[in-house]
Amino acid sequence: MAKKNAFYAQSGGVTAVINASAAGVIETARQHKDKIGKLFAGRNGIIGALTEDLIDTGKESAKDIASLRYTPSGAFGSCRFKLKGLEENKLQYERLIEVFKAHNIGYFFYNGGGDSADTCLKVSQLSEKLGYPLQAIHVPKTVDNDLPITDCCPGFGSVAKYVAVSVREASFDVASMAKTSTKVFVMEVMGRHAGWIAAAGGLASDERCELPIVILFPEIAFNKTKFLAKVNATVKKHGYCSVVVSEGVKGEDGKFLSDQGMRDAFGHAQLGGAAPVIANMVKEALGYKFHWAVADYLQRAARHIASKTDVDQAYALGKKAVELALKGDNAVMPTVDRVSDKPYKWKIGVAQLSKVANVEKMMPRNFITADGFGITEKCRTYLAPLIKGEDYPPFKDGLPQYVQLKNVAVTKKLKEFKV
Amino acid sequence: MAKKNAFYAQSGGVTAVINASAAGVIETARQHKDKIGKLFAGRNGIIGALTEDLIDTGKESAKDIASLRYTPSGAFGSCRFKLKGLEENKLQYERLIEVFKAHNIGYFFYNGGGDSADTCLKVSQLSEKLGYPLQAIHVPKTVDNDLPITDCCPGFGSVAKYVAVSVREASFDVASMAKTSTKVFVMEVMGRHAGWIAAAGGLASDERCELPIVILFPEIAFNKTKFLAKVNATVKKHGYCSVVVSEGVKGEDGKFLSDQGMRDAFGHAQLGGAAPVIANMVKEALGYKFHWAVADYLQRAARHIASKTDVDQAYALGKKAVELALKGDNAVMPTVDRVSDKPYKWKIGVAQLSKVANVEKMMPRNFITADGFGITEKCRTYLAPLIKGEDYPPFKDGLPQYVQLKNVAVTKKLKEFKV
Repeated sequence: MAKKNAFYAQSGGVTAVINASAAGVIETARQHKDKIGKLFAGRNGIIGALTEDLIDTGKESAKDIASLRYTPSGAFGSCRFKLKGLEENKLQYERLIEVFKAHNIGYFFYNGGGDSADTCLKVSQLSEKLGYPLQAIHVPKTVDNDLPITDCCPGFGSVAKYVAVSVREASFDVASMAKTSTKVFVMEVMGRHAGWIAAAGGLASDERCELPIVILFPEIAFNKTKFLAKVNATVKKHGYCSVVVSEGVKGEDGKFLSDQGMRDAFGHAQLGGAAPVIANMVKEALGYKFHWAVADYLQRAARHIASKTDVDQAYALGKKAVELALKGDNAVMPTVDRVSDKPYKWKIGVAQLSKVANVEKMMPRNFITADGFGITEKCRTYLAPLIKGEDYPPFKDGLPQYVQLKNVAVTKKLKEFKV
Repeated sequence: MAKKNAFYAQSGGVTAVINASAAGVIETARQHKDKIGKLFAGRNGIIGALTEDLIDTGKESAKDIASLRYTPSGAFGSCRFKLKGLEENKLQYERLIEVFKAHNIGYFFYNGGGDSADTCLKVSQLSEKLGYPLQAIHVPKTVDNDLPITDCCPGFGSVAKYVAVSVREASFDVASMAKTSTKVFVMEVMGRHAGWIAAAGGLASDERCELPIVILFPEIAFNKTKFLAKVNATVKKHGYCSVVVSEGVKGEDGKFLSDQGMRDAFGHAQLGGAAPVIANMVKEALGYKFHWAVADYLQRAARHIASKTDVDQAYALGKKAVELALKGDNAVMPTVDRVSDKPYKWKIGVAQLSKVANVEKMMPRNFITADGFGITEKCRTYLAPLIKGEDYPPFKDGLPQYVQLKNVAVTKKLKEFKV
């Protein structure tokens, strides 16, 4: 096999551990300099490839690349940019191949979710069609945990841990205040389509530390009457209640709870969250004092409380992607395969990209309790190992020491291309 | 000195380290069984004293009391309940003395902010007047950091650390997304009167890790034009921007930003946050895609990322309170005295309660940059040591192992008293 360069890009919403996958890719590639020449990263994801804005990762020290393992976010920049179908947008795909050819790139590592799995597959198909040899490997990443075949998605375990820890801590807080003040705490979490992240809030309560938690899943149409009855019964029994609400919860009318036609004093539409809507609803119907939080980016960027399991898997998947490329694989994605629940054991497997692209893994209904407000033992068995272990970043003067790479640009060889 | 029992209560909003002060009080009291008999805690703060709902802390194991050091929230329950002036509400004060008398309580430890310092002082004055000997010691606590004399308030350092770490992490996230998606991230933090907590967001950026952060302080009247110009200039220069907004920010009309007369589709008033108001304002005027978070209870309950400095001080103040009582002091509060900035050194001092009660320590204007959107070096020198050091709680199966006490009630001796 002739020595070829490699291309790596990060795609979509970033996570606490996508850079750990990057470290896995880069460190493993550096161990095989006989086969992999330079490793270029796309500045701001696939846009970097289209505009020939490549970063020479070879300019980064071994220490800085190792630091990626504990640095959240996308170190080379990510993007929300979906390539359209091959027929609709052949120009963009051909441009990719042109850039890869110009820089002697033979390996394409794409680190993202469902959409980028699809892009990765199409790039592989086109390279075959155009007779340009390219091995396209997808590295899974998504806090939404909705990729098929792999048991879980890197990024999810750390969000799940953040949510479980935060809900536990805030529940302790509300419990202290409930006698004369706040009785209901509402926390909004991510997950527009699937309730995996909301479900993690359920882990805050376990047999060693019981806490009253009500979860609102996007999979269950919101029923105001049932919800208020549940909250009221919970407060009556425990004195307080924590509510975890997924941003994706919809009413029976199919509209997002967060989209309640809110207007400011001037009549301007305001984009609010689901948490304040839920909190105000509780106050109005039950009169309980409330507090609410919206975790937003904090949850997916919280590398300081990342799951060690998640970090290890993210790194292992990046490493495996390079190993798969070296043994000649194409149009595949390394996966996390669960070997056993208790003790939790996992290994890295491989999936064909054709079976990954455009398939969303939803939460099974039997992961949600019959009343729709909690998680079942089955769900707990699945989730619990994913948040296991701490992997603190190094701190200095009280702050985590995350790395900011130099990101030196590679000299362009081609004409400009408008994206 | 005859052997007397002691009473301890937690007051107001709880923090990540108020239980560390409780551990300091209880463990130190246990070391002086010759002078301090039983240590009772008020269930839900001072309400527990008024209703004679006392908890026998002697029923808790040494291990559980030690666990308080790393457990957030108020382990005995807190309350938002301010005793009125002595003249207006003599009955309540007399009831307190009656309960203390019934349970042979000679030491009164009150763990709270400015209001409870005032209550503590009044209890001390009344006991003198009624000829019932009582030593009243106030243990400082407040995330707002607004108590006078003490250099800082336990609870603040940990919130400051949470905010600094979270803003750093979220800023890394926005930086990754800015090319094609989110350019402005807004995070709302606590601090209705003083901007101490918002200021801590400025620590996220330092000479080792520069990040573009704009802060909105309650001390500076919000000027929409200037703010939008600042955000726009920041995004133009850095590609993105993080905004830290205090919940207490008011417009030039003196109204809270969060109180924008928001109505839902049915015309019901909605209590929103300042963050969505700011975020929508940026979107409307500048067209930048935004994300926003409201940290709310998460920030003050986040024991998992507490400041070691804060934990150590909280414990030391609880310990000192007992020592002051043992040497006969009354109507005092132990304080944190700063000995030096670099290296940071502190010791425990003592303040007269008469000089603490009803005094609020605001942020000096020279802690805020001239343009009103950042912190000065003076502010940084003050804040930086307070977030130093990590003090992780023990984890099991991925979750922090916080203690839930037994909180066994003491048998009542008096008639019921309606609060």
